This record gives sequence, C-alpha cells and structure tokens, in this order.
Amino acid sequence: MEIIEYSLEDIKEKKIEKVEELFKYKDLETVTWINIDGLHDTDVIEKMGNYFGIHPLTLEDIVQIDQRAKIEMFEDYIFIVMKMLDFNEEKNIVEGEQIGIVLGKNFVISFQEGKEGDVFNPLRDRIRGGKGRIRKMGADYLFYALIDIIIDNYLIILEKIGEKIEKYEEVLIENPNENIIKEIYELKREILYLKKVITPLREISIKMEKSGSKLITEKTEPFLRDLYDHSIQAIEAVETYREMVSFLRELYLSSLSNKMNQVMRVLTTISTIFIPLTFIAGVYGMNFENMPELKTKNGYFLIMGIMLAIGIGMYKYFKNKEWL
Amino acid sequence: MEIIEYSLEDIKEKKIEKVEELFKYKDLETVTWINIDGLHDTDVIEKMGNYFGIHPLTLEDIVQIDQRAKIEMFEDYIFIVMKMLDFNEEKNIVEGEQIGIVLGKNFVISFQEGKEGDVFNPLRDRIRGGKGRIRKMGADYLFYALIDIIIDNYLIILEKIGEKIEKYEEVLIENPNENIIKEIYELKREILYLKKVITPLREISIKMEKSGSKLITEKTEPFLRDLYDHSIQAIEAVETYREMVSFLRELYLSSLSNKMNQVMRVLTTISTIFIPLTFIAGVYGMNFENMPELKTKNGYFLIMGIMLAIGIGMYKYFKNKEWL
Amino acid sequence: MEIIEYSLEDIKEKKIEKVEELFKYKDLETVTWINIDGLHDTDVIEKMGNYFGIHPLTLEDIVQIDQRAKIEMFEDYIFIVMKMLDFNEEKNIVEGEQIGIVLGKNFVISFQEGKEGDVFNPLRDRIRGGKGRIRKMGADYLFYALIDIIIDNYLIILEKIGEKIEKYEEVLIENPNENIIKEIYELKREILYLKKVITPLREISIKMEKSGSKLITEKTEPFLRDLYDHSIQAIEAVETYREMVSFLRELYLSSLSNKMNQVMRVLTTISTIFIPLTFIAGVYGMNFENMPELKTKNGYFLIMGIMLAIGIGMYKYFKNKEWL
Amino acid sequence: MEIIEYSLEDIKEKKIEKVEELFKYKDLETVTWINIDGLHDTDVIEKMGNYFGIHPLTLEDIVQIDQRAKIEMFEDYIFIVMKMLDFNEEKNIVEGEQIGIVLGKNFVISFQEGKEGDVFNPLRDRIRGGKGRIRKMGADYLFYALIDIIIDNYLIILEKIGEKIEKYEEVLIENPNENIIKEIYELKREILYLKKVITPLREISIKMEKSGSKLITEKTEPFLRDLYDHSIQAIEAVETYREMVSFLRELYLSSLSNKMNQVMRVLTTISTIFIPLTFIAGVYGMNFENMPELKTKNGYFLIMGIMLAIGIGMYKYFKNKEWL
Amino acid sequence: MEIIEYSLEDIKEKKIEKVEELFKYKDLETVTWINIDGLHDTDVIEKMGNYFGIHPLTLEDIVQIDQRAKIEMFEDYIFIVMKMLDFNEEKNIVEGEQIGIVLGKNFVISFQEGKEGDVFNPLRDRIRGGKGRIRKMGADYLFYALIDIIIDNYLIILEKIGEKIEKYEEVLIENPNENIIKEIYELKREILYLKKVITPLREISIKMEKSGSKLITEKTEPFLRDLYDHSIQAIEAVETYREMVSFLRELYLSSLSNKMNQVMRVLTTISTIFIPLTFIAGVYGMNFENMPELKTKNGYFLIMGIMLAIGIGMYKYFKNKEWL
Repeated sequence: MEIIEYSLEDIKEKKIEKVEELFKYKDLETVTWINIDGLHDTDVIEKMGNYFGIHPLTLEDIVQIDQRAKIEMFEDYIFIVMKMLDFNEEKNIVEGEQIGIVLGKNFVISFQEGKEGDVFNPLRDRIRGGKGRIRKMGADYLFYALIDIIIDNYLIILEKIGEKIEKYEEVLIENPNENIIKEIYELKREILYLKKVITPLREISIKMEKSGSKLITEKTEPFLRDLYDHSIQAIEAVETYREMVSFLRELYLSSLSNKMNQVMRVLTTISTIFIPLTFIAGVYGMNFENMPELKTKNGYFLIMGIMLAIGIGMYKYFKNKEWL
Repeated sequence: MEIIEYSLEDIKEKKIEKVEELFKYKDLETVTWINIDGLHDTDVIEKMGNYFGIHPLTLEDIVQIDQRAKIEMFEDYIFIVMKMLDFNEEKNIVEGEQIGIVLGKNFVISFQEGKEGDVFNPLRDRIRGGKGRIRKMGADYLFYALIDIIIDNYLIILEKIGEKIEKYEEVLIENPNENIIKEIYELKREILYLKKVITPLREISIKMEKSGSKLITEKTEPFLRDLYDHSIQAIEAVETYREMVSFLRELYLSSLSNKMNQVMRVLTTISTIFIPLTFIAGVYGMNFENMPELKTKNGYFLIMGIMLAIGIGMYKYFKNKEWL
Repeated sequence: MEIIEYSLEDIKEKKIEKVEELFKYKDLETVTWINIDGLHDTDVIEKMGNYFGIHPLTLEDIVQIDQRAKIEMFEDYIFIVMKMLDFNEEKNIVEGEQIGIVLGKNFVISFQEGKEGDVFNPLRDRIRGGKGRIRKMGADYLFYALIDIIIDNYLIILEKIGEKIEKYEEVLIENPNENIIKEIYELKREILYLKKVITPLREISIKMEKSGSKLITEKTEPFLRDLYDHSIQAIEAVETYREMVSFLRELYLSSLSNKMNQVMRVLTTISTIFIPLTFIAGVYGMNFENMPELKTKNGYFLIMGIMLAIGIGMYKYFKNKEWL
Repeated sequence: MEIIEYSLEDIKEKKIEKVEELFKYKDLETVTWINIDGLHDTDVIEKMGNYFGIHPLTLEDIVQIDQRAKIEMFEDYIFIVMKMLDFNEEKNIVEGEQIGIVLGKNFVISFQEGKEGDVFNPLRDRIRGGKGRIRKMGADYLFYALIDIIIDNYLIILEKIGEKIEKYEEVLIENPNENIIKEIYELKREILYLKKVITPLREISIKMEKSGSKLITEKTEPFLRDLYDHSIQAIEAVETYREMVSFLRELYLSSLSNKMNQVMRVLTTISTIFIPLTFIAGVYGMNFENMPELKTKNGYFLIMGIMLAIGIGMYKYFKNKEWL
Repeated sequence: MEIIEYSLEDIKEKKIEKVEELFKYKDLETVTWINIDGLHDTDVIEKMGNYFGIHPLTLEDIVQIDQRAKIEMFEDYIFIVMKMLDFNEEKNIVEGEQIGIVLGKNFVISFQEGKEGDVFNPLRDRIRGGKGRIRKMGADYLFYALIDIIIDNYLIILEKIGEKIEKYEEVLIENPNENIIKEIYELKREILYLKKVITPLREISIKMEKSGSKLITEKTEPFLRDLYDHSIQAIEAVETYREMVSFLRELYLSSLSNKMNQVMRVLTTISTIFIPLTFIAGVYGMNFENMPELKTKNGYFLIMGIMLAIGIGMYKYFKNKEWL
C-alpha cells in the first residue's frame, strides 16, 4: 500500500503495511491517493471498504478479476473498473491487469491486480514535481488523470499493434511462409481482447460526463470530454485494425496461392517442354525395319538439332508468356 | 415438487406430491421457494396458477417449451422465462432446458422442464447454510439469485466453448484433417444456439432494472445491475466466439489447401526430375545407325553419370527453393 | 364469400354470392367474420369498402398484391396486410399469398388472394367447437387470432426450411455434387423472400401494442404481446438460417475442393510412381554397345525386381502419408 | 418551359419561352404545374426564383447536379431534390437525371436536368383526362403525385435489375465464361448507384409526413404514408439485390473453378491411364539379352492384350468414380 | 501569421511576425481572419490563446496533431478541429494536415499544421473580390466558408480515389499482375484513413446546427444545413469506395486464378496430347521378336500417320472444348 497525500503547498509519500493506518486519510482537506497492489488479501480490502463506506458489491467487483469495464455512481463515491494494459516486449504480446479506482471526497483509492509495475509513474512525477495542473486541483482531477493515463496507454499499445500489422504485411508481400498464419491468428485474438477492453469506454465516458455527481467539480468537467475523445479514438483504431487483420488473412491466402502457383507453373512448364521431346525420341526408338531416317548419316544429329530447336522454342515461348 | 421455506431464523424443506399442499405457502411472512420439475402435468400447473393468481397466458408460456427468453411484469407478479444450460461432458455438447420463474409477494416458483438436475444446488446450500445475504433478504433477492446462477452458468459454458475453439485451432494448425469441418459446423450451430439463448438477456436485464415494480425492494436493486453486466459479458463472448469460429473455418480451408499444395508440389517435383532424365534415356534408345556415342566404351557410364548429376542438381535446386 | 357470425351462445355459417347480402352484418351485436376469396372482382370490393367505411387507399392496398406487410390505424377500423405462407410439399418450395384483414366494430373482414386454401381451418373449428376463449371474446380477439395463426404458420414453415438446411448439410458432407449449388441458391432466395415477409412484423406488432385504438379491448391486449414474441422468434430464425445458408455455401465449396483434391492427388500419385519406373526402363532401352548389365543372365529379372520394389516402396510411402 | 394550369372544371396547357410570362401564375386559385427542362440557363432560374420567393441556396441546389436527395421545408414552399431514373434499353443500363420540385401555394415547379424525356406522361394524361383524384385536389396532391410516379419508377427499374440478376444467374449455372465477371461488376456499380439514390428516401418521406407544413392539406396526408411504404420497399429491394449480386460473384467463382476442375480432371485422368502403359512398353523395349518373353511367339499380342485390358480397366474404374 | 480584416466596404491584408500585433484585432467591428501557419511555436499560441480567451484544453487540442475531428462549443467561442486533405499528385497519395479553427465574436483564427499550402486560396480571392455573400456577412459565415471549403475538398479527393479505383479495376480485368495487390492494399489504407477523417463530420455538422450558440447568426444557419448534406455525401462515398475496394480484391483473386488456370490448362493439354503418342511410340519400340507390323514396308509411315491423326484429333477436340 502506497500513499501520496498532497495539496498545492505540500506533498507526503508513505508506504504502509497495516490497513488501519489508512483510516486517518479519509476526512483530510488535502488530496490523498491510496494505491493498493494485489487483490488477494480480501480481508484488508473488506476492512478498508467498510471504513471508507464502499458498498459490498463494489468490493466484490474490485476483487473479482475478469470484470467488464464499467463505471458506477454512488452517493458518496464513484467507482470505475477497467483493464490496465502492458505491452510485454519480450513475448511480443499485450498483457492486461484489472484496476479498480474509487473516487471519494478528497481521496482516490486505486486497487491494482499487481502483476508488475503500472503506468502511473509519469503521474507520480507530475504530482511530485508540483508543476502543471494536478497539484492545484482536487481528487476528481486525480481520478481523471489516472483514467486518462490508462487510456493514453491504450493508444500507445494500439500503435504497437499497428506496427505489428505493418510488419506482417511486409513479410506477407515479400516472403510469405506457412507459419505466419499462426501469428496472424494470435494477433487476431489480441485485437479481439483489446476490443473487449476498449469498447465499454465509450459508455463509461458518456456516463461520467453526464453523471452530475457532486464529486466532480466544474473545473474538471472539460477534461472528461477529453476522455470521451480518446475513447472514441481507441475504439476506431481497434475497428480499423480488425479490418486490416482480415485483410492480412486474405493477403496471406493470396500470397500463398501465388507462391504455389508459381511453383506449379514452373514445374509443369518443364514437363511440358520435355514431353514432346521424349515423344520424338520415342519415335526414333521404334523398331520398324523400314525407317529411312535411321539410315541416313546425319539423321541423329539432325533430330538432336530439331529437338534442341523445339526445346529452345518452347522455352522462349513460355518465357515470353511469363509462364516460367 | 420441492419446497424451501425460510426466514432469517428458520428453514424448512419439504417434498410434496399434491398441488393442494402448496396453497398454504401463498401468504406467509417467510420466503418460500417452490421448485417444480416437469411440465407435462398441465393440470397441476393450471390449478396452481389459478390459486397463485397467474394469468393463463403466463401458464401457457411456462408449459410451451422453445419460448424465446423474456420477462413480463404484472401487477402481482413478475414472470421470467429463459433457458438453463448444461454442458454434457459425455456427448461434448451444450444442452438446454426451459425454466420459468415467477416472483410473487414472499414466494418464488420455478418451473423446470426437468430433464435432469439443475444448476441451483449451490444456491440451496447457501440457503441452508444461512450465511451470506440470502437468508437476510426477501423473495426478490431469491428471484435475483436464481437468475444470477443461471447466467453465471452461461459464462461457464461459454468458457468451455472457448476451450473447444482453442483445441480445434491447435488441431487445425498441427494436423488438419477433412473430418474436422463437420465438428466446426456443429460448434457453429452450438454458438448460434447460445446466441439465441443469450441475446434476449440484455433486454430482460434492462427491463428488470427499470421496471419500478413494487415487488423489487430497494435493497435488491443494485444486484440487478450485476445481471446486466453479466448479460453483456455473455453476449460479447458469444460474438467473439462467432468471429473466431469463422476464422477457424478459414484456417481449416487454408490448412487443407496448404496440405494439398505440399503434396502436389512434392509429387510434381518428383515427376519434373524424372521427365528430363527419361528424355535422355529416350534419346539413347533411338535406333539411328550413326550415333557415335553409342559405340564409345564408356558412353553408357558417362551418360548415367550425367543423368545422376542432372537428377541431383535438380533435386538440390528444388530443395533449395523449398519446393520439396 | 363466406360468413361466420357468432356470439357466446350461437353460431351461423353462410356462403353468399351477392355483396349486398353482406351489408346487414355491419351493425350486429354478435361478432361477424367475413372471408373473401379472390381479389379480381374490384367492383365488389369497392362496394363493400364504401358500405363498411373503408378508405379508398386501403382498398387499393387490399387489391394490389406485392404490398409490403403493414398495419394502419384508422378512426373506425384497423387494417393489416401481410403474406400468408404455404409450403408446397410437391414442389418443395414456399408459396405466399397476400391477405388483408380489416377489424371494425364487431366485424372482421379478411381479403385473400385466393390461390388455394388458407391456414384458418383450425380457427374455424375452434369457433364452431365453442370451447376455448374465442367465442367468449369480441372481434378484436378474432382479429388477433387470425394474425396469430398466420404467424404461427410462419414458424412452421421456418422449421421446414431448417429441415431442408440440415438435409443439404448432410448431403454436402457425405456426397457433394455439383448440382446442389443451384438448390442452395434457390434456398437462399426463399430465405430472402421469407426475410422480406417477416421483417415488417416487428414494427407491426409494436404499432399494434401501442396503438391505443378503442377497437382493441383491454382483455385482448396481453395477447398482442404474444404476437410480438412470435414475430421476434420468426425474425431471429430467418437471420440464423441466412447465416447457415452462407455456411452451406462455404461447405459446398470446401467439399467440392476436397473431392477434387482427392482425385488429383490419387491421379498424380499414380503418375509419380510410374514415371521413375519408366525412366529405369528407358535406361535399359538405351542402345549403348557397352552396357554390361544387359549381358548378365539375370539382369532383366533383377531389374524387374528392383522396379517392383521401388514401385511397392513408393506406393507404401504414399499410402503411409495418406496421399493415396 | 411547359405549363399546365387546371382546376376541377378546366385545364389549360401552354409552352412558353419567356420567364416573365410565368409570373402571373403565382397567385391563381387554380393549380399550376410549371415544368422546366434544362438547368443551364441559370439566369432564368434566378429570375424565377426571386419572383416565386425561393431562397438562393435552394436555387443553387436546383442547378448543381449530383446533389444527394433531400427535402427542405421553408415557410412558403417545400423543396425536394431527387434523381429520376431511366432504364436505357439499348445500353442495358440505368441512367439518372436530377429533378428538383418546389411546392408553393397553388403551384408546383419541377426543374429537370432535361436529358431526354421524363416519367410524367401518365400523370399528364391523368390531369388531362380529368378523372381520378388529381383534378379534385390541390397543388400538394400534384406534388405528391410527381414524387410518387418517380418512386414507382424506381420500383420498375429495380424489377429490371432483378431480371438481369436472374439472367446472369442462369448463365452462370449453365455456361459460365470469364467475361461475365465484368458485367457483374457493372451490375454491382449500378446497384451501388441505386442505393445512393434510394437510401435518402426513407428520411425524406418521414420528414414529409411529420412536417406539419401548412402547404400540405389534411386530405393529402394519407397519401404521404404511401410514399414511405414504397420507399421502404425500394430500399429493401436494393439490399436484397446487393446480397444476390455478391452471391452471383461466389457462383461465378465456384462455376469457374468447377469448370476448370472438370478439365484438369479429364486431362490428368488421360495421362494417368497412359503412363503405366508407357511403362510396360518401356519394359519390353529394354535391351537385356535374356528376356524370355521377347522370344515367345505370341508375347507381343499377349502384352498388347494385357495393356488393352489395363487401359480399359482403368478407364472403367475412373468412369465409375466419375472422374472422367 | 497572416491577417485579413474586412467589412463590406473595406479590406486590409497584412503579414505579421509578433503575436502582440494581433491583439488589437479582438474587439473590432469588422471581421478579422487570422491564419497561423505552423504549430511548433507553442509560446505564441499560448499567448494568443490567453489574450483571446481560449481555454488551455483547446490550445492543447490545437497543438496536438492526430486529434480526432470534433467541435466544441464554449461560451465565447466555437472551436473545430479537423483534417485538411491534399492529394499529392507526385506520390499519388492523399496527405492530411490538422487544422483548428476558432470562431469568436468578429474574428476567426485558423491554426494550420503548415506542411505546405492550404485550400483557402479561392476563399481569399472571394474576400478580396468583394463580390458574393462573404463580405456582406459576419465572422460566422467566414467560419462556415472555411469548413465548407475543406469539406468540398474532401469530395474532390474522394473523386480522385474513385478514379484510382476505376483505373485499378480496368488493369485487373485487362492484365492482372501480382504486384497490384500491394497497391490495392495501399488504397485500402488510404480509404480507411479517409473514413477516420470524414466519419466524425456527421456528428460535427449536427452539433453545429443544433448548437444555438449566439455566435451563429440566423442568416448563416441555412448554410450549416449544407455542411451536413456534404458530410453525408462524403461519408456515403467513403462507404461505397470501401465496398468497391473489397470487390477489387475479389476481382484480383479471381483474375489471378483465371490466368493461372489458363496456363495450367494449356500446359496440361499439351502433355495430354503427347502422352498417348509417346505410348504408341513405346509400343513399337518393344523388342519382341514376333511383331509383324515392324516388318511391313509402310508400317512406320502408317504409324506416323496414325499418330499425326490422333494428335490433330485431340488438338481439335480440346480446341473445340475451349481447353486450349
């Protein structure tokens, strides 16, 4: 558990172990951000929930991972649950962990699944630095800032997906191979996962803007519109990528079929050149007693020349027609 | 017919045969859950319906299986009809039976088609155990809990479908065979069935939340929002699976065509190697009288060497180009 | 023209020829159902329309077949026009005829295109039998019952379509042939036709429920909700069938390509076995003077043995790889 | 410029050259229809617009072709712009020209692009004939009648498209050839064009029905509903045709691939019959000194018989398997 | 920075360097258009923003490129951000730069990314020329005119895309080659980009029409409807092009497969003609001692004749069947 308490003038940071130490942060005039890593200790979360007046259903939503992203407005607090994404550079895949954020009067509590790290460090720096808006504004702005940084991170992840798609596209056009379909399938799954994560944002940001909750001050409202804009941007990007992935699949199929066609064409053309020649050789391998050509002096060389001519002629013809 | 009557303090369970025994449970202060297995005895259902004030059309809806899931709000009761799903591990398929649930003042009646078993045992245990919310709350919470357990079960079934898809996917990439298309077709049907079962839930949960029925107390209302969330989750999962199944089909087609292409390529390559060699053999099988090579001492061995060289050369060339 | 006039106590049936005989049925206290077969005699329809106070535009809608299904609410009557479907078992296709129904105070007039027969016989029997609700209720219930029986018939037809799809599916998996695509195309057209017929029902049933017309009594209202449910069921079935038909097409294509692939594989494999053998035979058909093998005693038999071994080896290899 | 001025009793037709002659028709009690062919003379249109009180933006919309169909309600007039379609039997394609119609008090002005002819002749005849509703009703009915005749014409055009599709379908099933894809592509473009023309009609007819403009009398209102019905019918037809065209494309591809498959199968089968026979011939063409069969008296005839038997056997086998 | 200040009577143009010179243009009675090229100098933009009362969030939106197009209504100004497109004839691609436009009382400020040039020159000429509406109307009309010219430019760009599609279509039908798929892919990306740029316009133009902002005078309102019409036109065009591009892809695949089929058919047919002939030659190459034909005088010529006849016969047969 990590606590950042700040006002325009001052900032205190603390790491605490015992849940009881948190309780004093409830009714301060300053803004307090309580960040909890790990959702396994349900006891702690329950105690805290009771003290901060959080509904049992909300606590369940916090603890249960694999929630669909949503926002809920209560009398005394606003609760949002969503996924925080991370692009694992090593495995080259997107990973997500659930995060629940509660906005109360003068405090924000964030519950992370706590896999590893989070995306909030730039925000911590902005609070510590004391410049910019964040120290001048209340808990609602902090709440907005947390969500904003998560959604901005979506856009970054989406750009990485876009780069992946472009890379695959190049590979497919230059040098299609039969293993890439598996990777495209993985990509497809990833995009479907992103779609699931991102789609509810539209509804969430609309709800937030129209909530009329007293917890959100007028000064913060224009920023919420920003969330909506970014959500739409992310949703549209996902849609575009979905379409591009299905195009990738088509590209794969057509590339593969092109490659195969080329091979078959070359092979068949070779056969087609030699089969008539073999026929001619067969003719002069016949055992008729009366085959005048066989007795001429240069018959063999003539025929060899003719065969060479036919072979070269066919080769040129096929080359000309771009069949070879 | 199985009856569970409970209040915060007490619980009574009973199995009865005669419909008349049910009548006394109508106006109790405690909560009564009447569970009826089997819809063939329409006489019993009619009698009961009359006594509990259920509209004839509702009774028809209960008895007629293959109803589309729906909820109907009446003055004195709320009626929901939906499918209860079961994953038959043996046959590896999803099976559904219809269930109608009536919420009245202080009682809940569930009408099961009664194929075999139901998904309510965990709920029965929770009632018997007496812990948790269920014993503290009214019939409306029991109504919610029944629906909730059915929808949760949908999510479990959907996960099984997801596993099936992953299994097929692996099979298709590793070792596609021509019988799998039939199984994919079965899977597609299953998903279409699930879609039919699950899609109406969205509308149902919205209607329930907005009903304003006096049968649903304020304490139960937040839970209804949960139903909506789970419904959306199930609907989205079905949509995702539909998309993935159509990708499976594409994968199947491309796998099959890949496999076929490989075979044809290998076969054609073999032919292509031997046809020029056969031609050479044909040439020296010609019967021209004047073919100097035929008379040389090592002509035969030389030609055999040349043919070997050509054969190996082509083999290497094709191997190099990954055509073999 | 066929007339059924009934009240709870009594029922009179009559067939009449002259339109004037109808006029007395307008202001009775009992319920009258006038059924008119054939729309060619526009004169009769116009006279009747004038007498019963039907707007000229409505009369046009009745007479003009190929109308889109719709409902129109007027001050004095409600008019619905829709298709009545019939499954022609002989030709194995769905046929439709237009039916217009007018609900006035105490009377219902149905205008059939009159191709042959209708689907109302069970209803006539219910009226004659005098049991059930129909004789106890007014003209509005009769109106509902007519529409209900038509929509129920849609569901029956749709089931037949479903059976057709399953049959084709089986044929496609067991024994695909190139003629079936034409039948699938016919099926596709049929489903598109059904879609056109059924889709407007959703709107119609909503309009009917929300009309607030004084012609529809409170007692009949709950039944209208039933119409909506059945309409949705029919619409969803059509959608599902559309999807399944496009899957049938894919199945057809993949079946055909599978069958073709099998043939080509077998043929190519046969060639591939014999081409190397032919080459060997070609080698020993060469006319080199110095070919030591030719002079050995058992060379021929040895070579034949080797060729046999190669042939069997390749056969087994290909068999093993499932190429044959 | 062509003028038809009529009332129930009387009708006057006139062709005029000078725009000033039009001005007297503005405030008559009778209904005046002014039809202007050709939009190039913007001067005339501007003058007229000014006199009849038409907004400059409307005049721009009239003159600028390639407008999207739309309706605009002004205080003193209603303006609609749409396409009038014509099926050019010679070129076998659909052609469209823009038409703008202005409904004022007691007058209707139609501005045609004036390519050639229009679809209004039946309407002119109805006005001249004096029977039917048109002479009894006001300018608003004339306005409706003009739009109605244009939309009815859409339905006729759509039927022609339907016939085209059926024709192509037959061709594709009977005798697919590689040029038809171009024609299907043209058809596709045509349908996309029709979609663009027809889709806005839905919105237009809704707007017209709900306008509440004082220019539209109560007597004309029921007819507007008709426009809506026909619009929906046209839109649905376009959608159906779009689907059928994409099916045509599939049919084309599968027909082509079928035809190709048949050819390849026959060719490959022929090769497969002769390759083993060639091998046998090759065997007996070997030059081993000790080949006992060669010296038997009937060896040749026997082998020829065996080859014949093998050939016929394979032919029958392949025939049996329907590969030939 | 470029300034155009105008009223009905007068017009002044100026290029300035220092932001402070701008400030005097805020409260003039005349209309001032301030055009700023280049967004890198955030300092200048901030100063200006502060002076003209623009919200910091708006300033961020102006500076940050890759914004989704949107409109925002504030008390004192209206802000729109969108893309200005340019068709780069050289590279044959569409390029976009972001433009933000602020409408205040009597002034319009446009912030261009400033890549190179803009599309406003015709507008500048119209202002300078003094004819037309622009000089007679206020800043709101100027605002409209700027947006209108950008959207009109979209339509021009879309037409170019349409021409590209037609060109590709022709190439694909006449002479499909394997590189065109890459270009189609590029085209697809371009259309997806256009879709992203154009889709938000619908929402924007609706918002603008319904804003009720006091900055937009009644005289300008009818023009806003025009924006909506053009936006819809652009959106529909994008949709149509998307559909046509996917048809291009199909066309490509079928063209390619046609071409390949033709090649394979010709090659296979050649083989099929020579294989039976080779067999015959093989027969007469057998070494049986008793082969009577071999000893006849004209056997060789006869057999050659027969082979010729068979060859020509097969050629004609295949030609006839259009396999060659």
